[in-house]
Amino acid sequence: MRTAAVVGTGLIGTSIALALTGRGVDTYLLDRDPQAAATAAAIGAGTAGRPAAPVDLAVIAVPPRHTGAVLREAQLSSLARYFTDAASVKAGPQQEAAERGCDLTRYVGGHPMAGSERSGPLAARADLFHGRPWVLTPSVHSREDAVRSALELVHLCGARPLTMAHTEHDRAVALTSHAPHLVSSLLAARLLVGDEAHLRVAGQGLRDATRIAGGDSGLWTDILGSNAAAVADILSELALDLDVVLAALRDLGSGDPQARRRASAEIGAALKRGAEGQARIPARAPADREAAGWQLSGASAPA
Amino acid sequence: MRTAAVVGTGLIGTSIALALTGRGVDTYLLDRDPQAAATAAAIGAGTAGRPAAPVDLAVIAVPPRHTGAVLREAQLSSLARYFTDAASVKAGPQQEAAERGCDLTRYVGGHPMAGSERSGPLAARADLFHGRPWVLTPSVHSREDAVRSALELVHLCGARPLTMAHTEHDRAVALTSHAPHLVSSLLAARLLVGDEAHLRVAGQGLRDATRIAGGDSGLWTDILGSNAAAVADILSELALDLDVVLAALRDLGSGDPQARRRASAEIGAALKRGAEGQARIPARAPADREAAGWQLSGASAPA
Repeated sequence: MRTAAVVGTGLIGTSIALALTGRGVDTYLLDRDPQAAATAAAIGAGTAGRPAAPVDLAVIAVPPRHTGAVLREAQLSSLARYFTDAASVKAGPQQEAAERGCDLTRYVGGHPMAGSERSGPLAARADLFHGRPWVLTPSVHSREDAVRSALELVHLCGARPLTMAHTEHDRAVALTSHAPHLVSSLLAARLLVGDEAHLRVAGQGLRDATRIAGGDSGLWTDILGSNAAAVADILSELALDLDVVLAALRDLGSGDPQARRRASAEIGAALKRGAEGQARIPARAPADREAAGWQLSGASAPA
Repeated sequence: MRTAAVVGTGLIGTSIALALTGRGVDTYLLDRDPQAAATAAAIGAGTAGRPAAPVDLAVIAVPPRHTGAVLREAQLSSLARYFTDAASVKAGPQQEAAERGCDLTRYVGGHPMAGSERSGPLAARADLFHGRPWVLTPSVHSREDAVRSALELVHLCGARPLTMAHTEHDRAVALTSHAPHLVSSLLAARLLVGDEAHLRVAGQGLRDATRIAGGDSGLWTDILGSNAAAVADILSELALDLDVVLAALRDLGSGDPQARRRASAEIGAALKRGAEGQARIPARAPADREAAGWQLSGASAPA
């Protein structure tokens, strides 16, 4: 890959552009807000504006609900030979791309699994994706050279490629990202009614459990809306568990020793299931070593 | 303070003992499991076994439901002049201490707000409490010199003392610690039903949101059971919010554009409240500077 374009110079788009520029790829920066593209260019992410000729790969890094339309526009204007995106849901954008008549042979869906509570080009970092999973969701229409181009992008960004079907991806992120985000938000919202003095005893546990609730609510409304059914499936199971635990907490205040014993066992079982679920999360990959490995393989990949 | 005793050499008790020993206080280590006290002694936390004469201060660092009984026993055996504890709930142990006929004039409840997912003496650290809040809950019965002794302990451990009423403390920790723990557990339990492949896309957000769910489920069953009503109050509000969000997620899949718009606005509002709640958490105190300050004042405090 010698040339690339990034459409949408927010946190993710600008981080991708910084990584590509850092690896010697001529990168063009487009945004519906020219000031955002200029800011990304000013911090060394590439050249603001359209390339004179089609680039090798264009990365559509806009919110999920705009991804299909922006892809269509980019293809109509011959921005690039191949196209990928960075939206955190995949089935909706793929379907919209099909409905809008995009050339699906030259498009491969993508989702770099990294982010920050901060947003915008100034929060971007060239190493944002180092060692992180980056899901690619090639469709039956995707040409092999389009997949290769998207794979090269992943390698150039130092990430670990994973291939999944769209719906599989969306179920996975509902479980590991979207439902957790909403739960974290509901938990953090409880702090609004708390006395100021109560919050002075906050420890690291609360900070960690609510960190993701600090994210951009507009973007997350879009993400959750684009994956609503899968998120609802997980949260309705959680709501059932919550009802059981709530009833148990109430029973602990009752005078009946047998009810108290049963309630205590139920809470213990819920906590134990939580610890077991938490233990299933794979250990984080040693980012630097993996990233170095991918950079090597990226460097030897066909351009 | 020249001499102290710690009853219960788990993570918290041993960390307190390490801090006291490090500041030159002769510290005795007691545990119903003599091996645990010996382990704490072996890592430099003090001397295993009972002191020959009453020490200045005894710290009862056992699970909440045992705190009252262990305090009574320690007072009957004249272990110390003054007594405090480290249980993460305060109203229950205080009430039990009263019911068991403890000398409440020489007792001041305490709760150091620090911990770890790890437990036991080998996880202990002398600096565990540096810069952290440490709540003291003197009762109307507590003598002033007993409060001074507990305060000196806080300073010697490098923590920041906060004074609260028992019930106030329990509501505060229900909000900032106990309810978050249970919510984190319920979220992590969802991962038990997920496909192994789904978990490969887990990012830092999920790790943070579920970190506390990895805690000791036996100890947490006790903690939650000791503060059940306050935790239930918070979780039932959260359950109501969850119902609203769930209905909105379902509506997003409906064909009615007006219902979809309303649903999207509801999810956006929930996320916005979450971000606002999260922003209320006070920034973490710069531990080292604060701790150094407390060490100075601790050093000049009357012994």
